[in-house]
Amino acid sequence: MSEQKGRFITLEGGEGVGKTTNINFITAQLDAAAIPWVKTREPGGTPFAEAVRNLLLASDTDAPSHLTELLLMFAGRADHLDKVIRPALAKGIWVICDRFTDASYAYQGGGRGQSETQLALLEKLVHSDLQPDLTLLLDMPVEAASLRVDNRGQQRDRFEQEQLDFFQRVRDAYLQRAHQHPLRFRLVDASLNLEAVKTQVGEYLKPLIDEALATRSSV
Amino acid sequence: MSEQKGRFITLEGGEGVGKTTNINFITAQLDAAAIPWVKTREPGGTPFAEAVRNLLLASDTDAPSHLTELLLMFAGRADHLDKVIRPALAKGIWVICDRFTDASYAYQGGGRGQSETQLALLEKLVHSDLQPDLTLLLDMPVEAASLRVDNRGQQRDRFEQEQLDFFQRVRDAYLQRAHQHPLRFRLVDASLNLEAVKTQVGEYLKPLIDEALATRSSV
Repeated sequence: MSEQKGRFITLEGGEGVGKTTNINFITAQLDAAAIPWVKTREPGGTPFAEAVRNLLLASDTDAPSHLTELLLMFAGRADHLDKVIRPALAKGIWVICDRFTDASYAYQGGGRGQSETQLALLEKLVHSDLQPDLTLLLDMPVEAASLRVDNRGQQRDRFEQEQLDFFQRVRDAYLQRAHQHPLRFRLVDASLNLEAVKTQVGEYLKPLIDEALATRSSV
Repeated sequence: MSEQKGRFITLEGGEGVGKTTNINFITAQLDAAAIPWVKTREPGGTPFAEAVRNLLLASDTDAPSHLTELLLMFAGRADHLDKVIRPALAKGIWVICDRFTDASYAYQGGGRGQSETQLALLEKLVHSDLQPDLTLLLDMPVEAASLRVDNRGQQRDRFEQEQLDFFQRVRDAYLQRAHQHPLRFRLVDASLNLEAVKTQVGEYLKPLIDEALATRSSV
């Protein structure tokens, strides 16, 4: 195998925008190109971080302070980076991650009002050396996304129970983040039908796959 | 009642140095002076932070990365400050806390090797505006302290299972911290017999109690 590092791809967006479906579409594309991958998620991704996730999403305990929530997100992330993300990338395995630090900017920053200064400080503490190679932001109006969550028919977790104005702030913060980091962000219109969304995702993914294939054939 | 803020007193030290006994001695002194107090501990102190504590101390799950452990400590601390420590102090209630941020410098810094820069950054993020008024460091040789833990006859948690060189680094880091903050730290020789230890603790506590009584009588 080549010694090329794996690519780090994150999918971002609010509740109900279709991240899971599109992650499965991406891994199918990687399989077709014989590129090794691992699928993971945040909060979570390691047994310890999943335990932190359970604490964070539980809707039956007292809610943590906003700063606590922010620190817990980065605590789980540090474990996830240490045990899953960095080792996989080092081995040439691509990491497809359902949410990452941009979600902290959106939910704890935009949603909860934690300052960008605090977020940037923790981001630097936990992964100053690493950013995603590609971040797909699945964007759609919050009212339509909320209807999709309702149609799942599952009980909503502590975040999913928030009100529409919370999700509007999350969406705005995501869009601002995309605006600030135009090189790695790609905006996907998640309100389109699934085939059109997949077409967009596939187009954004293609340059990375082509590059990997070219590198492989030149070795 | 006076509008004076409560005093924030922390007890620090390794395993087996006698923090619990001395905390009970302190609260008895405060009762005798009719000073309202709350006794609390870290990690923990709120239902949410206690859940984080359980995650941290469990010896049957995979250990978190060192940075994760550090972030979790401060995550619990932020909740504890927000819901217990700051509200009590604001109401004039004294807070007697079994371990606080100095313990992170000792255990995650000295013990685990996390940098002082990282610790200082999180300390500033979580409580730049607040430090204990008095920190009693119960200090004794680690071998003798370890024997005391054995004599409790309880199962050791994930920290208590560490080796003597870990506890030596913890002790060294505590002593360094005391050296760096001579105004609030008081060193107590915990290897003395209990009565002698209580006498020391009582002497260090007396100026604060006298001040509170003087303020009260002058109102």
